[in-house]
Amino acid sequence: MVTPYVSDAVIRRLPRYKRFLRSLKLKGQEKTSSKELAQIMDLTASQIRQDLNHFGGFGQQGYGYNVSDLERQIDKILGTDKTYTMGFIGCGRLGEALANYIRNNEPHFKVTALCDIRPDMQGTEIAGAKVMGQSEFDEFVKKNPIDIMVLTVPADQIPSVERICVEANVKGVWNFGLVEISLPGIPVSNMHLSESLESLVYYINHPD
Amino acid sequence: MVTPYVSDAVIRRLPRYKRFLRSLKLKGQEKTSSKELAQIMDLTASQIRQDLNHFGGFGQQGYGYNVSDLERQIDKILGTDKTYTMGFIGCGRLGEALANYIRNNEPHFKVTALCDIRPDMQGTEIAGAKVMGQSEFDEFVKKNPIDIMVLTVPADQIPSVERICVEANVKGVWNFGLVEISLPGIPVSNMHLSESLESLVYYINHPD
Repeated sequence: MVTPYVSDAVIRRLPRYKRFLRSLKLKGQEKTSSKELAQIMDLTASQIRQDLNHFGGFGQQGYGYNVSDLERQIDKILGTDKTYTMGFIGCGRLGEALANYIRNNEPHFKVTALCDIRPDMQGTEIAGAKVMGQSEFDEFVKKNPIDIMVLTVPADQIPSVERICVEANVKGVWNFGLVEISLPGIPVSNMHLSESLESLVYYINHPD
Repeated sequence: MVTPYVSDAVIRRLPRYKRFLRSLKLKGQEKTSSKELAQIMDLTASQIRQDLNHFGGFGQQGYGYNVSDLERQIDKILGTDKTYTMGFIGCGRLGEALANYIRNNEPHFKVTALCDIRPDMQGTEIAGAKVMGQSEFDEFVKKNPIDIMVLTVPADQIPSVERICVEANVKGVWNFGLVEISLPGIPVSNMHLSESLESLVYYINHPD
């Protein structure tokens, strides 16, 4: 399927559709409508129709959407019907928590290798994969391609980590570091914990 | 300062401004312009002027912005010039990692109490605060108000956790659970790790 340009806001909503569809499926519901989705997702029905029309639209006039079909279609659009290998650079508490989160909750993502510069971490196992030092990790990822590199390293390590990502030819980067990174030709999703927290603080201080 | 309605997208950009201003300050730079900010933040200069004009605008024609002043002003708008107490419900790996992240990186947020239903966790200490069982935690938060409750619990515990947040009279909720929650009158920031990961996968599969 050739997809025309779709705004980032729409792309970010697709996983959210999936989550609500899954909860409908768990309740045993087979079909839904843009009106119902709008209600549970706090959007408007026309916004939902518009979002899904970007990809051809999957509803039928007078019927609505088949829950499982729509979920499958969104998986296909996102690419979450396929499986991805994952490497981790930085195995502090956050790195370890994320690797275990992935192993326990994300069957389409496989933790295959981890890297940490601290010698006492090397050789240990996290989320079923081995923690390696820099040079061993470099060798490993040359032979075992990593699709997504997850970064939880301090700011001063970012330049060397960027080099590793480029050399390892990763397809995408999921960055939890405090510094925003951008790599030529490699999509990066910067997760800024502080920013989410600080915008929450704004809403605490500006109640409706 | 009375602030008129400002869109969520603008609010979410404010912490990002702060981050870039901080990096300019670290380089010893005293002033900046909407043009420079636009360049390093990958926005347009007019978008930046528009964003900041929501709050009165802080630049001077022909001078631009004073870096420290602008950072301070944004802190004031967000409310990040004040300090907030934080409670944690769920002390698995992610809860522990987040509590330690807050202690090490966020001086304006203080981890004051943690709650976990597993008896072997109770009585231990994480990020300088005590892990308590449900009833001890309930008592504690009555006497020691929690501004922000951080949730890292599985889906089936969400209903009881919602009750705790309401009874504890928290001002805001930072939710890392897999289920989106909304509480009447309490701002909630839902952090969906899977959604950020899935939108990254979209961009991996749809290169420009």
